[in-house]
Amino acid sequence: MINKLVEEIKKKNAPIVVGLDPMLKFVPEYIKQEKFKEFGANQKGAAEAIFEYNKGIVDAVYDLVPAVKPQIAMYEQFGVEGVIAFKRTVDYCKEKGLVVIGDIKRGDIGSTSEAYAVGHLSSVEIGGNLFEGFGEDFATVNPYLGVDGIKPFMDVCRKENKGIFVLVKTSNPSSGEFQDRIIDGKPLYEHVAEKVNAWGANLMGDSYSYVGAVVGATYPEMGAALRKVMPKAYILVPGYGAQGGKGADLKPFFNEDGLGAIVNSSRGIIAAYQQEKYASFGEKGYADASRQAVLDMKEDLNSIF
Amino acid sequence: MINKLVEEIKKKNAPIVVGLDPMLKFVPEYIKQEKFKEFGANQKGAAEAIFEYNKGIVDAVYDLVPAVKPQIAMYEQFGVEGVIAFKRTVDYCKEKGLVVIGDIKRGDIGSTSEAYAVGHLSSVEIGGNLFEGFGEDFATVNPYLGVDGIKPFMDVCRKENKGIFVLVKTSNPSSGEFQDRIIDGKPLYEHVAEKVNAWGANLMGDSYSYVGAVVGATYPEMGAALRKVMPKAYILVPGYGAQGGKGADLKPFFNEDGLGAIVNSSRGIIAAYQQEKYASFGEKGYADASRQAVLDMKEDLNSIF
Repeated sequence: MINKLVEEIKKKNAPIVVGLDPMLKFVPEYIKQEKFKEFGANQKGAAEAIFEYNKGIVDAVYDLVPAVKPQIAMYEQFGVEGVIAFKRTVDYCKEKGLVVIGDIKRGDIGSTSEAYAVGHLSSVEIGGNLFEGFGEDFATVNPYLGVDGIKPFMDVCRKENKGIFVLVKTSNPSSGEFQDRIIDGKPLYEHVAEKVNAWGANLMGDSYSYVGAVVGATYPEMGAALRKVMPKAYILVPGYGAQGGKGADLKPFFNEDGLGAIVNSSRGIIAAYQQEKYASFGEKGYADASRQAVLDMKEDLNSIF
Repeated sequence: MINKLVEEIKKKNAPIVVGLDPMLKFVPEYIKQEKFKEFGANQKGAAEAIFEYNKGIVDAVYDLVPAVKPQIAMYEQFGVEGVIAFKRTVDYCKEKGLVVIGDIKRGDIGSTSEAYAVGHLSSVEIGGNLFEGFGEDFATVNPYLGVDGIKPFMDVCRKENKGIFVLVKTSNPSSGEFQDRIIDGKPLYEHVAEKVNAWGANLMGDSYSYVGAVVGATYPEMGAALRKVMPKAYILVPGYGAQGGKGADLKPFFNEDGLGAIVNSSRGIIAAYQQEKYASFGEKGYADASRQAVLDMKEDLNSIF
């Protein structure tokens, strides 16, 4: 799957992942009204509205970008109905040929970690047959529990040709609280990065590993250091746009060939129509506004090289 | 909710939480056959079998223990149907008066963390009305992202009188890979514990904080140190039984009054009938075997004091 991701990035010339993190306040009123009328102003109605909204965005951008990253928290807030919308979103994006990165940030140990890996990246065996759970292509994983939490995911990735992105340095202001603390002369995030590099060495695609890393756009100087520590890890870069990162700042995350990193934008794309810059598209043009935001982001990123 | 948890622990004289972590191999054949026949040997059938199995255990132990801890990974492995079984399990346990600790180990930032907190511990607003998501009483939370990931949970806990358990030192062998690394003369887990203590200081129940901690039974000497660092944090202790912890080793996690810690056992209780010790109960007596395992665990823990 890392090979497919790299290939699609090259083909579309866009190291961009669209974060499908729908909040109800992003969903155009006309969609909410329609779905609330049909299904009720409840969790079912909200989940249907969110799926419809996602679908519009995906239809408008799938030819431009290699991947999407639905954030499962935004679906879990609506309970079971939200989780159903998550699954439908994953399925729909895969139908459109997109690589799907499940932003699930799971992290547990042993058989529990295996259960997450099976549920999100593989299939469970029931009565001798296999059944796919949520069916993402990649998942984000939390490293705090050590290799016991990572290895079950790696085993599943090997079997299914899927991949993970391990949280190394997150984009938020308080990420330094623990991640930046110095251990033996190096920050914790660098120790995690060294492990990511070691874990990934035995799980290689053609030029990059199945084991990638998350490094926030808000910390480009750390991106530069981490790029060297993990030369074979694809770096998933959140924090572009809304969280403050700009294209020119992101050069350190990439290798010389323009590969090695994929930049996420969520609300900057999916709620573009709510920004002044794209206001002329109006609510009904929300998907076209998202398309324009992707084109603008592509131009911004391509200016790096 | 921390007050209710403490009260129930006292009333039932059992600092025990039953881990409802159903794997299909734990579920008696007769339940699987019945549910597969009715719903198919698929995710729906598996989810129904797991719920039926949980129900039997809950019916057999709810008068003995204050709390249960369903591990959501074990449900997510069955996809959407599994998540429905998780929700049904939470609801059933609450009907029986049990405190429900959602072992979800979520950890993200800002609005994403808020969405998890809303989905698991509170209600989402849709069209002016509130809808509960999964409805647990407590959730486990991962600290790697710093206070940005914790604060949204704390805000929700304050509003809803609910609580969290923050991962401090986990029970697995590789937990030391990052958690034990020394920063300024102290292991990382101790720095996390200091934060837990600070975060919890402004969110107090009668005698313990809404902000608790997870510390593995497998590390009693660390338990002793951490008990002092976080005097007001209830400690959720996994790793008893199957992972090797024994009652006598657990004294350091408790305060003098016998409070301050709650010990989890999962397969040691829910799959007791598969152990030689409880084999005489047979498959059909699986719930009675679980009850006996709880009684034995209670005796083992009460021998500490």
